[in-house]
Amino acid sequence: MARKTDKDKGKAEKGRAKGKGGAADRLRLREVLRVPPGGGRIDLRRSDPRAIPAGPTGKAAGVAATAAMAERLASLQERLYASATAGDRRRVLLVLQGMDTSGKGGTVKHVIGLFNPSGCRVRAFKAPTPEELEHPFLWRVANALPRPGEIGIFDRSHYEDVLIARVRELVPRSTLGRRYGQINRFEQDLADDGVTLVKVFLHIGYEEQRERLLERLDDPDKHWKFSPADIEERAVWPAYQEAYEKALERCSTEAAPWYLVPADRKWYRNWAVSRLLLEHLEALDPQYPKGEFDVEECRTRLLST
Amino acid sequence: MARKTDKDKGKAEKGRAKGKGGAADRLRLREVLRVPPGGGRIDLRRSDPRAIPAGPTGKAAGVAATAAMAERLASLQERLYASATAGDRRRVLLVLQGMDTSGKGGTVKHVIGLFNPSGCRVRAFKAPTPEELEHPFLWRVANALPRPGEIGIFDRSHYEDVLIARVRELVPRSTLGRRYGQINRFEQDLADDGVTLVKVFLHIGYEEQRERLLERLDDPDKHWKFSPADIEERAVWPAYQEAYEKALERCSTEAAPWYLVPADRKWYRNWAVSRLLLEHLEALDPQYPKGEFDVEECRTRLLST
Repeated sequence: MARKTDKDKGKAEKGRAKGKGGAADRLRLREVLRVPPGGGRIDLRRSDPRAIPAGPTGKAAGVAATAAMAERLASLQERLYASATAGDRRRVLLVLQGMDTSGKGGTVKHVIGLFNPSGCRVRAFKAPTPEELEHPFLWRVANALPRPGEIGIFDRSHYEDVLIARVRELVPRSTLGRRYGQINRFEQDLADDGVTLVKVFLHIGYEEQRERLLERLDDPDKHWKFSPADIEERAVWPAYQEAYEKALERCSTEAAPWYLVPADRKWYRNWAVSRLLLEHLEALDPQYPKGEFDVEECRTRLLST
Repeated sequence: MARKTDKDKGKAEKGRAKGKGGAADRLRLREVLRVPPGGGRIDLRRSDPRAIPAGPTGKAAGVAATAAMAERLASLQERLYASATAGDRRRVLLVLQGMDTSGKGGTVKHVIGLFNPSGCRVRAFKAPTPEELEHPFLWRVANALPRPGEIGIFDRSHYEDVLIARVRELVPRSTLGRRYGQINRFEQDLADDGVTLVKVFLHIGYEEQRERLLERLDDPDKHWKFSPADIEERAVWPAYQEAYEKALERCSTEAAPWYLVPADRKWYRNWAVSRLLLEHLEALDPQYPKGEFDVEECRTRLLST
C-alpha cells in the first residue's frame, strides 16, 4: 500500500508540474469505462445506462466541465496536426456505436464541434451500397480512415457487420464468426500504424429510447430522423444487446479497447466522450515540430521584402 | 422612386414576418462583394484589403455579429441536411482562395466551426500528388465535392491550376488559357446539379502578409506553418495578383460568382464569410421534409413496446 501511495503522489505531482493539477486531472476515465480485454463475459443488463461512474454528478457541472475542456482539446488537436506536417503518422479514430437514438449524431455535434473542422474527418456509415457490398466488409472503413494528424470519427462503423449482420442474419454464421478476428487484426494493424482507436459504445436503455423516439414523433422538425423501421428494431432489442455484448467481449483488445459510456444522460455522454478524447490526446502528447530553417536569417530576408 | 420604396418596404416586412427585421437583414453582402460577371477589368491595387464595405465597423461589433449568426447558420445547415434525406440534391460549396496567410485556415476554424461537423466536408488541396497529376486537373476536386445536404469547403481548389500554374509556368500557355473555360463549364455543371458555389477570394495586402509571416517566425509554436519558400513567393507577388485578377475576371459567372472579401482584418473576414454563407443558405430556404408515415399510428405502436 505504501508503494501505491507513493506512485499516486508521483502522478499527482507530475500533473501539477504540467500545470494541470486538481482531482479531475487525476481521474483516468479510460480505466473506469474500459471494457477489460480478455473476453470476460459482458452483461449489459447489469450496466445502468443512467449511471455516473465518475466525473461531474449533475448536468450544470457536466456541461461546464465539457466546455472547460474545449481549449485543451483544440490545442492538442492543433499539435497533433502540426506534428504530422513533420512526418508524425499518429492520428485518432473515434468509433461511435450504439442503438438508434443513443446519441451518435449528438456526440459529433457537441464533442467534435469543439475541434477545428480542418483536422476532423467525419464519416457516417449507412446500409452498404452495392459497390461496398462487392468488397470485403472492411473495405469501406479502410477507405475512410483519418490521415496522419487528423481526428477521424466513425458514426457507426465496421461493427455494424457483426451487429445488424448478426441480428438480421445477413451473412452465414461462419462468416460472422470469422469477422471478430478480422476486426481485431485490422485494428491491431491500425494501432501499429499510429492510429489511436477510441471505440465508444453509447449505452442507452430501452425506456430511454422510447422517450427519444416519441420526442421525434412529437416534433415535425424531427420527423426526418424517424422511420417506422425504428419501432421494428425495438422488437429485436435483446438480440441487439446480445450482439453488442459479443462485440465488446471479443473485440475489446489491448490495442483497441472498447469504452462503455452510459448514455441516457446526454450531458454525461458528452462529458465522457470529451474526457476520453482528452485523455488519449494527452497520452499522445503531440509536439509542435521545430522549424527546419534559420529564423534570424528568414526574419532579415522577410523584412527586406 | 416611389415603386422602389414600396418594394423595399415589402422586403422589410417580409423580413419582419420571418422574425428577422433590422438593417443587418436588409443588407445583401453578396451584392456588395460580388465580382460582376461579364469579364470587366479587375485591378486589385484599387481594392483596399483593410476596407469595410458593409456591415459592422469595429472589431467588437463584428465578433458579436458573427457569433449572433451561429444559431441561424446551424439551423439552416440542419434543414439542408434533413432535406437531402428526402431526395433534395442541393448543397453548398465554399471555395477559399487567397495568398499565403490570407486566412483560409482561420476561416475554416472560426466560420465552419459554427456548423455541425457531421454535415461539413472540408478538403485542403496541396501540391498535386503523382496520382493527381496523372488525371485532368479537375479530377481531384470532382472527387472531393460535397454530397447532397452537405456544406463542402475547399481550402484552395482547382483555381490553383490557373494561379500558381500561371505564375510558375507549370503548363504551356495554351493549356492554361483553356482552363478558364473548363472551370466555368465545370462550375456551371455543378450549379445545374444543385451546388451553390460560394467562391471567396480573401484579399490581403503585401504589408499585412509580411506582418503575419513575421508573427509565425516569432512564435516557435507557429514555425510549422512557415516555410522559407513563403518569402520567395513574395518576390512574385505582382504576378500572383495578376493571376488572381485574371481568375476573378474570367471565372466570375452568373452561375458561380466570385466574392472579393477584404481580409486584412480577421474579424471582418470571419463576419463577411459567415454572412455570405448565411445569405446563400437563406436563399436556398431548405425545409425539413414531411415524414412519410402515420404519426398517430407510430405513436400508438411505440407506446406498446
